[in-house]
Amino acid sequence: MAPQDYSCEFFNVTQPIENVAVVEIDRPKKLNSFTSQMFTDLGNIFKKLSHDPDVRAIVLTAVGDRAFTAGLDVTAAADGPLIKGSGAGEERDTARKAWDLRRHIKEIQEPVSEIEKCEKPVICVMHGISYGAAIDISTCCDVRICSNDTTFSVREVAIGLAADVGTLTRLPHTLVPMSWIKDICLTARDFSAEEALRMGFVSGVYDNKKAALDRGLELAKLIAEKSPIAVQGTKAVINYSRDHSVEDGLDYIAVWNAAMLQTKDVSDALLAGLGKNKRKPVFAKL
Amino acid sequence: MAPQDYSCEFFNVTQPIENVAVVEIDRPKKLNSFTSQMFTDLGNIFKKLSHDPDVRAIVLTAVGDRAFTAGLDVTAAADGPLIKGSGAGEERDTARKAWDLRRHIKEIQEPVSEIEKCEKPVICVMHGISYGAAIDISTCCDVRICSNDTTFSVREVAIGLAADVGTLTRLPHTLVPMSWIKDICLTARDFSAEEALRMGFVSGVYDNKKAALDRGLELAKLIAEKSPIAVQGTKAVINYSRDHSVEDGLDYIAVWNAAMLQTKDVSDALLAGLGKNKRKPVFAKL
Amino acid sequence: MAPQDYSCEFFNVTQPIENVAVVEIDRPKKLNSFTSQMFTDLGNIFKKLSHDPDVRAIVLTAVGDRAFTAGLDVTAAADGPLIKGSGAGEERDTARKAWDLRRHIKEIQEPVSEIEKCEKPVICVMHGISYGAAIDISTCCDVRICSNDTTFSVREVAIGLAADVGTLTRLPHTLVPMSWIKDICLTARDFSAEEALRMGFVSGVYDNKKAALDRGLELAKLIAEKSPIAVQGTKAVINYSRDHSVEDGLDYIAVWNAAMLQTKDVSDALLAGLGKNKRKPVFAKL
Amino acid sequence: MAPQDYSCEFFNVTQPIENVAVVEIDRPKKLNSFTSQMFTDLGNIFKKLSHDPDVRAIVLTAVGDRAFTAGLDVTAAADGPLIKGSGAGEERDTARKAWDLRRHIKEIQEPVSEIEKCEKPVICVMHGISYGAAIDISTCCDVRICSNDTTFSVREVAIGLAADVGTLTRLPHTLVPMSWIKDICLTARDFSAEEALRMGFVSGVYDNKKAALDRGLELAKLIAEKSPIAVQGTKAVINYSRDHSVEDGLDYIAVWNAAMLQTKDVSDALLAGLGKNKRKPVFAKL
Amino acid sequence: MAPQDYSCEFFNVTQPIENVAVVEIDRPKKLNSFTSQMFTDLGNIFKKLSHDPDVRAIVLTAVGDRAFTAGLDVTAAADGPLIKGSGAGEERDTARKAWDLRRHIKEIQEPVSEIEKCEKPVICVMHGISYGAAIDISTCCDVRICSNDTTFSVREVAIGLAADVGTLTRLPHTLVPMSWIKDICLTARDFSAEEALRMGFVSGVYDNKKAALDRGLELAKLIAEKSPIAVQGTKAVINYSRDHSVEDGLDYIAVWNAAMLQTKDVSDALLAGLGKNKRKPVFAKL
Amino acid sequence: MAPQDYSCEFFNVTQPIENVAVVEIDRPKKLNSFTSQMFTDLGNIFKKLSHDPDVRAIVLTAVGDRAFTAGLDVTAAADGPLIKGSGAGEERDTARKAWDLRRHIKEIQEPVSEIEKCEKPVICVMHGISYGAAIDISTCCDVRICSNDTTFSVREVAIGLAADVGTLTRLPHTLVPMSWIKDICLTARDFSAEEALRMGFVSGVYDNKKAALDRGLELAKLIAEKSPIAVQGTKAVINYSRDHSVEDGLDYIAVWNAAMLQTKDVSDALLAGLGKNKRKPVFAKL
Repeated sequence: MAPQDYSCEFFNVTQPIENVAVVEIDRPKKLNSFTSQMFTDLGNIFKKLSHDPDVRAIVLTAVGDRAFTAGLDVTAAADGPLIKGSGAGEERDTARKAWDLRRHIKEIQEPVSEIEKCEKPVICVMHGISYGAAIDISTCCDVRICSNDTTFSVREVAIGLAADVGTLTRLPHTLVPMSWIKDICLTARDFSAEEALRMGFVSGVYDNKKAALDRGLELAKLIAEKSPIAVQGTKAVINYSRDHSVEDGLDYIAVWNAAMLQTKDVSDALLAGLGKNKRKPVFAKL
Repeated sequence: MAPQDYSCEFFNVTQPIENVAVVEIDRPKKLNSFTSQMFTDLGNIFKKLSHDPDVRAIVLTAVGDRAFTAGLDVTAAADGPLIKGSGAGEERDTARKAWDLRRHIKEIQEPVSEIEKCEKPVICVMHGISYGAAIDISTCCDVRICSNDTTFSVREVAIGLAADVGTLTRLPHTLVPMSWIKDICLTARDFSAEEALRMGFVSGVYDNKKAALDRGLELAKLIAEKSPIAVQGTKAVINYSRDHSVEDGLDYIAVWNAAMLQTKDVSDALLAGLGKNKRKPVFAKL
Repeated sequence: MAPQDYSCEFFNVTQPIENVAVVEIDRPKKLNSFTSQMFTDLGNIFKKLSHDPDVRAIVLTAVGDRAFTAGLDVTAAADGPLIKGSGAGEERDTARKAWDLRRHIKEIQEPVSEIEKCEKPVICVMHGISYGAAIDISTCCDVRICSNDTTFSVREVAIGLAADVGTLTRLPHTLVPMSWIKDICLTARDFSAEEALRMGFVSGVYDNKKAALDRGLELAKLIAEKSPIAVQGTKAVINYSRDHSVEDGLDYIAVWNAAMLQTKDVSDALLAGLGKNKRKPVFAKL
Repeated sequence: MAPQDYSCEFFNVTQPIENVAVVEIDRPKKLNSFTSQMFTDLGNIFKKLSHDPDVRAIVLTAVGDRAFTAGLDVTAAADGPLIKGSGAGEERDTARKAWDLRRHIKEIQEPVSEIEKCEKPVICVMHGISYGAAIDISTCCDVRICSNDTTFSVREVAIGLAADVGTLTRLPHTLVPMSWIKDICLTARDFSAEEALRMGFVSGVYDNKKAALDRGLELAKLIAEKSPIAVQGTKAVINYSRDHSVEDGLDYIAVWNAAMLQTKDVSDALLAGLGKNKRKPVFAKL
Repeated sequence: MAPQDYSCEFFNVTQPIENVAVVEIDRPKKLNSFTSQMFTDLGNIFKKLSHDPDVRAIVLTAVGDRAFTAGLDVTAAADGPLIKGSGAGEERDTARKAWDLRRHIKEIQEPVSEIEKCEKPVICVMHGISYGAAIDISTCCDVRICSNDTTFSVREVAIGLAADVGTLTRLPHTLVPMSWIKDICLTARDFSAEEALRMGFVSGVYDNKKAALDRGLELAKLIAEKSPIAVQGTKAVINYSRDHSVEDGLDYIAVWNAAMLQTKDVSDALLAGLGKNKRKPVFAKL
Repeated sequence: MAPQDYSCEFFNVTQPIENVAVVEIDRPKKLNSFTSQMFTDLGNIFKKLSHDPDVRAIVLTAVGDRAFTAGLDVTAAADGPLIKGSGAGEERDTARKAWDLRRHIKEIQEPVSEIEKCEKPVICVMHGISYGAAIDISTCCDVRICSNDTTFSVREVAIGLAADVGTLTRLPHTLVPMSWIKDICLTARDFSAEEALRMGFVSGVYDNKKAALDRGLELAKLIAEKSPIAVQGTKAVINYSRDHSVEDGLDYIAVWNAAMLQTKDVSDALLAGLGKNKRKPVFAKL
């Protein structure tokens, strides 16, 4: 992986472990809050990572101790179409403004969805303030873990709108209890790492940011050592099954594996498991 | 809100806090058990609340210490179509009786569904005996909390039938573990407040009925202070997303917010958050 | 139930309690690992149990202390189409091999699905090593419980493939948190009984195999004493609701109960509950 | 059927043939155009017909030679929320107006949907001008036929809006070619009875209004003589199948007929068909 | 193909053209009417054909000049569960009879569905009386053609029941106009070959049975000469797309062809098309 | 519209009528056959047209008398991944090749889907040879018409593959009879303009290319004169309804029009229709 390909103002992309990429949000002075451009950049990074043959697992984290992200950069947004769109004294009529807003919302949704569409598993490691966009982004990731000091909040009703970048749509598909989803979305109240764990929103809480990141890297390493055919197929098929009936899911995996079982990876992995000297199999790039 | 509009034999509707309505089941001598008429009345109350401009959040509770509700009033039901419909010696043939029963089931389903369709968030605060209809009704609510002494039971298999007023249909959509859903539905066994919390069926358990109700009112107050455009949009979109794919959900919220972002609420809320003197914004009626 | 009907090399079917069948996987020397034939046999057993009028609830367990099942018998599989299909030096072209593999996957999926399609509730009691096929099989069961010493693992990515006998498809439908599903499926790591309970994958953990089995039998007995019309309808309707919208689910149960309420079971159960001397009602075979 | 039950300003309900109801739109001076109230009234009529035991088939037609209906009464609508809602100088903000409009649209959709939900088959017999609401209403009917002189038009884009009372939603479900649906909806152009027949929108065209009505009554009579269990089940199951997969449809009809085959109608009809003296069987009310 | 494998009392299976199987219903004295056993037999034949490597296209026709099939053998059915199930004087209660009927309906649905599930394209060539089961069966086939003298009828409402072997479910999925589907299903009236063609139910009408069969064989030959990978994939993907959104369909075909394009058939066919001497390519068995 | 924005090697984009864009495929020497790059270019053109405020309707046609398009440029494709992917002697294993192919198919699907996603209505005017890609592309358009001399063919099974750029997925959603869809897709046979009209695949056939194009422009002009809010809403909602149930469709249009009715276009159009001097209303850009 040529790191420069991913260079970009507020994100760092590195590769500390073989086949594992780490994406860092890097705007700590503004609590890693997001401008419109940053959504676009993040989407482009994940679009590239999706096809990068040297990457088999991705960890998403953020620079600084205080925040994973405080969400939308409200000061910047105040100049954007969202606030302007709701202002008075404009010449376009309501329906035309609605048309513009719909296009604008879709334009912000798209880069965030690139994280979900990324062929490789993404582990989101959160810490500190994890507000608004933190929920939008982390619900697109495959695995969510965090440090003990994380504070989450679905901020939207606090700023007068229904979350439209993905939170409301994706939370029910994270399969955490609906009563709790409604509670946190309708009140915009803070919730802790411990509550997030108990409800299943995150699947692990660690003592501090470093410990959480170490665990994220460890998971990513575990995944990156497996057959990429198996790993990426697993992600694709779980995502398909989430939105389809059991009947449909069984059919889809049968079609999928019709091709994907025709790989040396299966016998390599299988025979390694059977052999006496359990050598780790090495899998070709995908 | 003119309280008299809601007057009705076994329900009280009051408004202890601005924009918050409290609906009480009030038939404590019969453990708040439900007759057919009570289902109809409850449905009508929620239909009215849905469009009442003075109501922005609703708490559903029950009078008395012993029970939220013991479920269907079995003595009353014993005279109804359910038991008569299964009796011998009637002149209508089986298919025609089936037709009548189907209509009858739909007639009872409809008012219960009005709670779910109510545009405003509904917080269900349960206590004591919470059997049968308690599950049907509370699964239509957005948030479920309860007191420590609550005892729940899906009673239907105990009285020889598959739950048809909504329990079996809605429980899988509350996103609590399926193994547990099957356990409680197939055995009709009691389960405690603590178990309900652990499984995510309720999202909070409090020391006693008063403490639970206080928390319910507090949540309702929090919600009622937010922009009603934001709050009611959030409820609508989560409910849509529950039954649709992520792709569909993202499209729906984009169409929704195309209109709903064109409100002064967004800038009012946003600017209040940015300003020094954080005055609570006041939002117009919806 | 004539036990001989179910006789089969690696499975025992007994009836220790009235109307309760116990199915045991019986290949302890090989850690109860599965050959292709065993999948077929298991499917046939559940197909018969589904229509056996003497069976109203089923417990699925396994012989021996060490394992519920270690999963696919890898040594046997190494000679099968899975490994051969991925080998070199064959004359059929890739598309034709894919066609064969797709047929083969569907052939193994079918018997496993028979457990899910079985009209009677199935309680899966796991212990010890519960790998690979243990997840495929148990996600087809209605209730999952286990002993304290159980170790689970979704093995597929460890052997280079995406799980295709049902695990990836059914796990999201067990309604356990998605972040955790992705974690265990993408890493193939072991997880404990305690973790399985916390995440809701199992709904009970017991001190040892015997205690777990006793609880399984107790649940089965509770279920078998209820009206089979009510019990089997409950299973059918929850499974339907899992894959459909609330609107659809309410309509389906109304059609279902139009016929199924026309049973003496309802009044028998209802009147037994009302009467002074609470005699257990006896329900006719289904 | 007590005719007075259905009395209503702009509709006549008669019963010229046993078990056949005829509903006439009766506002010929205004080309049978619809006010808001008329939609409500029409919905109520079909709600009652749905449960009227003396009605087994329904013909929907209109008084006068010139028009089935010219659609929305534009002069009346100009005072309604549609035009007022889009006007300037109002105090409610855009989002709140949107909320009102959404409620208003749903309020008009509901009575029109009652025609579709009516348990009995509805045959729509159109003639002359059949614009706008004529399409909304007739797509809710089961069978559409018309006279030779009928002129159809989906008017909405001509008056600046996307059809929201059902036309755009239901036309694709009438299974007529999509290229043609888009053509007539996007241009608002007139199309003739002959074109409607060729495209399958209507299934019969007759020489004049009388001939069309005679054929409508003949079809209704044919239907009304059949077992109402069979007829109404057929309507319900086709409507279900239209919106579901083949797999789902087969399951639904199996549950449906489990009850509905338990009728003497089947043997009566079957034996009448087998017997020498083919007497028409008489079926009990449903 | 070893013809004896398919031998069966009322069906003939022959192979007049290379890779083309012809299935004949052969009970002309009873107008090819169906007993329960015949449905089972037909299902088994198509199950075998589905995997028979010597068969690439199938023609379904019937012996005799008078009828493709007159439908269910009513005399035989009069002794079956359908009529008995609706009779009086039985000891099983209504709900239990309903359970039996549901199982029975599913048992008859299954073999008919085997025609639809058959991996190879099936061309149904009808003639003469084509009633009841003729519609159930032919809607499972891929292409429907007929002779000029064919008379069709959906018989079910005439014998007092809603069609449950597939007609009501599959007709909307044949994409013929809904107004016409309702007309023929609700009235049980006869319709001619010409009407069936005009409405798109059949895609060709020929002068007589022989001409229709010749055309069926010609189509089958055309299909059988193509790559079986391409042909069977085309059938599978169209059937998938029928029940899914465009988005889903595009994804499915991409997964499908990921394996299926890896065949020499593509280059063979492509190069044959490009070459000067257009030799017909020969494709390996599938 | 600045014509140069759309300049591109094998496509012309002009604007002969106000608000109407004409896109011409311009590679007549190669019968307008498509290279991979041309799919990408076409997608980009429609992506731009979708947001071009000067365009309200689009006509898609092709240069030259002989062909709309002969489909994929087979000579060019023979060097592409499709043929290479199926070749022998490559080092990547089958599963990895499958992964590449799946990505490649999706890359070609995407630009074609841009035609369908284009916010403005697209009228496809075909003539002469209209093979393969002609079907893929035209099924993405809203309205299809053609000249008398058009010859269509779904070519894929003739070149050994199942159509994967959209034909198999979109044909069932054009709502033409399924028996005919299977016939043309499974045989790859030619079909005429007249047959296409009879089956509803095209909604108009004209004497020659010029007459067809004139009609296409006339339709486009009709559409472009209407309110763009109404027209583009109509396209969006019909496409939504095609893939959703009636219930869902009614809800979606209600949300949609909540914003879109708040336009002066409605009163302008409505009042123009009511006024004495029927002046054509002029609608603002969208």
